[in-house]
Amino acid sequence: MWSAKPIYPPKGFLFSGIIAGIKKKHKNDLGLILSQKPASASAVFTTNVFLAAPVLISKQRIKAGTAQAILVNSGNANAGLGNEGIVSAKKTSKALAQKLGIKESMILLASTGVIGEKFPAEKIKNAIPKLVQNLNPDGVLEFTRAIMTTDTREKISSRKIQIQGKDVRILGITKGAGMIQPKMATMLGFLMTDAEASPDTLNQLLKQIVPHTFNRITIDGDTSTNDSLFLLANGASKVKIAPDKPGWNSFRNALYQICLELATMMVADGEGVTRYFYVQVNGAKSKSDAEKIARQIANSPLLKTAISASDPNWGRIIAAAGIAGVKFNPNHASVFLLSPNGKNRMEIFKHGARSKKYRGLKQEKRASKILSKNGFKIIFHLESGKESFEMISCDLTEQYVRINASYRT
Amino acid sequence: MWSAKPIYPPKGFLFSGIIAGIKKKHKNDLGLILSQKPASASAVFTTNVFLAAPVLISKQRIKAGTAQAILVNSGNANAGLGNEGIVSAKKTSKALAQKLGIKESMILLASTGVIGEKFPAEKIKNAIPKLVQNLNPDGVLEFTRAIMTTDTREKISSRKIQIQGKDVRILGITKGAGMIQPKMATMLGFLMTDAEASPDTLNQLLKQIVPHTFNRITIDGDTSTNDSLFLLANGASKVKIAPDKPGWNSFRNALYQICLELATMMVADGEGVTRYFYVQVNGAKSKSDAEKIARQIANSPLLKTAISASDPNWGRIIAAAGIAGVKFNPNHASVFLLSPNGKNRMEIFKHGARSKKYRGLKQEKRASKILSKNGFKIIFHLESGKESFEMISCDLTEQYVRINASYRT
Repeated sequence: MWSAKPIYPPKGFLFSGIIAGIKKKHKNDLGLILSQKPASASAVFTTNVFLAAPVLISKQRIKAGTAQAILVNSGNANAGLGNEGIVSAKKTSKALAQKLGIKESMILLASTGVIGEKFPAEKIKNAIPKLVQNLNPDGVLEFTRAIMTTDTREKISSRKIQIQGKDVRILGITKGAGMIQPKMATMLGFLMTDAEASPDTLNQLLKQIVPHTFNRITIDGDTSTNDSLFLLANGASKVKIAPDKPGWNSFRNALYQICLELATMMVADGEGVTRYFYVQVNGAKSKSDAEKIARQIANSPLLKTAISASDPNWGRIIAAAGIAGVKFNPNHASVFLLSPNGKNRMEIFKHGARSKKYRGLKQEKRASKILSKNGFKIIFHLESGKESFEMISCDLTEQYVRINASYRT
Repeated sequence: MWSAKPIYPPKGFLFSGIIAGIKKKHKNDLGLILSQKPASASAVFTTNVFLAAPVLISKQRIKAGTAQAILVNSGNANAGLGNEGIVSAKKTSKALAQKLGIKESMILLASTGVIGEKFPAEKIKNAIPKLVQNLNPDGVLEFTRAIMTTDTREKISSRKIQIQGKDVRILGITKGAGMIQPKMATMLGFLMTDAEASPDTLNQLLKQIVPHTFNRITIDGDTSTNDSLFLLANGASKVKIAPDKPGWNSFRNALYQICLELATMMVADGEGVTRYFYVQVNGAKSKSDAEKIARQIANSPLLKTAISASDPNWGRIIAAAGIAGVKFNPNHASVFLLSPNGKNRMEIFKHGARSKKYRGLKQEKRASKILSKNGFKIIFHLESGKESFEMISCDLTEQYVRINASYRT
């Protein structure tokens, strides 16, 4: 997943990332994406009741369906500051608008970092000239590094596809790491394309893709105040994308693949994570039942710690499933493990009891081996209906605790 | 809380705890409580869909409202084994009934330990003669040690009160440690009294007391398949307890105090726990809203890790409150910290923003000091109604992960 893949920056987008002195450590902490001309824009945001100032502002501005720039900082979430946070955030977008010579309403904002600390608007204002000066089509990596907090790796995914004989480029960048169980969006995500598309088309794409990608991941079950996912389309490729046009499916598939790759990268690089895995619930009466059980299993700290030690402690799987608030007959429930390549499938628990096929140390070792690999699958089958849901989760390690105990120090 | 308090074993109860060889380590793992004559009995059990065999059996037997003995083992949960687990469990109660010369239906069962491993019925049967031989009124400690798993301390609380000029004794014993967020009962709990009371009265007492004690604690948000809380009253004191009799309130209060003490002990001795704390939600529109928010804050892994480092990272408190699934106005929300002795009260967050009173390093150090003490309180105030809910939670440490990664090895 992290093999060096080519990056295809869409035409007409410029990127920049610099050190503005927001983070305590001397690292990139201010980023800018600029579309050379106004782009169609859509976004989804966190479902948290508490919304960070940049989320409140971007939610308002995105309604117009067009945007030209996204200003992002790490090191400070600009959350929990009330009106003061909004005033501070607007100071930065005003300064950027003046520098770029565009309307302030065309600037979207995103922040990530500590909640409740005074927002360093002055530092950002002072850094804007350099930020703008550094804008260039190949600044993707510098930008990506500017949005990282406890992420250990850059999360970038892109595609170049052919539509109507022309090249169309799509680029996705996210940051993740902790406080991640998005219910509408990812921690911070930026999707850009040089296709031409209406805001309605972009809304439709996000609505179709997000529930199957970013909304299926969990690191620790917490949902941040700042989650934002933006999608910008500037039309520089001169290729129009719409549901009734040729190339719709290949465009949608490419965007879906990018989102899925980024979502998986986020889980795999969760705080202290050594392994990610899938939790699939099948045979539920309703989608909502399947989702409740999948989320409960995916979030069980006891199961997540067992997996960090490759311990096939399946009792923790059924115990978690049993408290999801879903009624089902435990005697119709079964559990399977599936290796990442799909070749090794083990029946662990069958119709309410330890499977007869799963006895002895040899079987346990086989199960443990599956659990030691990245991307294995836990399947929980209910036999009470036809609905399914799948989550991507990760293990819980001592490193997670270390990172989050010392996060502010 | 753990200061050496006198233990008051109620009259007419005998206790025993021995090594039966169920645990891998050479430690007590089989316990027995015997009432010298049949006692009124009541119980509450886990709300997990998956019920361990001893829970299924005890649920059935408790319906009669009388019981005489409770056979408990640690080292094996007898869960996830289907009908085989029930047959195994019954073998042990049958053997015990024969040895004691009482009806098998008068024996209640409880198990704790690993899920899904073959239940060692033969080992238990073989150990029963010694277990019965060791029964004595002062065997409380030996019994308590037999039910411990990752507990590091015995959890015992008792009272001797005067009712109608006579002594009445109440004794409570619990085990806890992990997989603990009871929704109806505690992990394993045993309450005994020599008062005389009908099963209906006992049911009523548990119904009144459990929601305010055992159901308000959480270690890690997981609810086990084996949670059971038993209450036995054998009447040996010749004092009758009933809602319309004198002494009702003092009896109920004593039982409540015992349950609260035991519940708090369980949190304080949770796996890897260094500190317990209270989460109080006030001003909610409904009890259920208050409970949802309190549970979400109490279970946030990010908040729990911050507390392990005494980090007043209150952003994690509001972020957790904001995803509890309760609608409220964030601009009416406030957060306070209260020191264990109630003398130090800090306003951290006021009406949707960091409090003006809470600025600067000196204030943060004051907050950090509160968080470093056992038993501090986090108060989340909504101003949308009059309902409250309080939880007892604990910090999340690297030790929790270590214990649960290596639990079966």
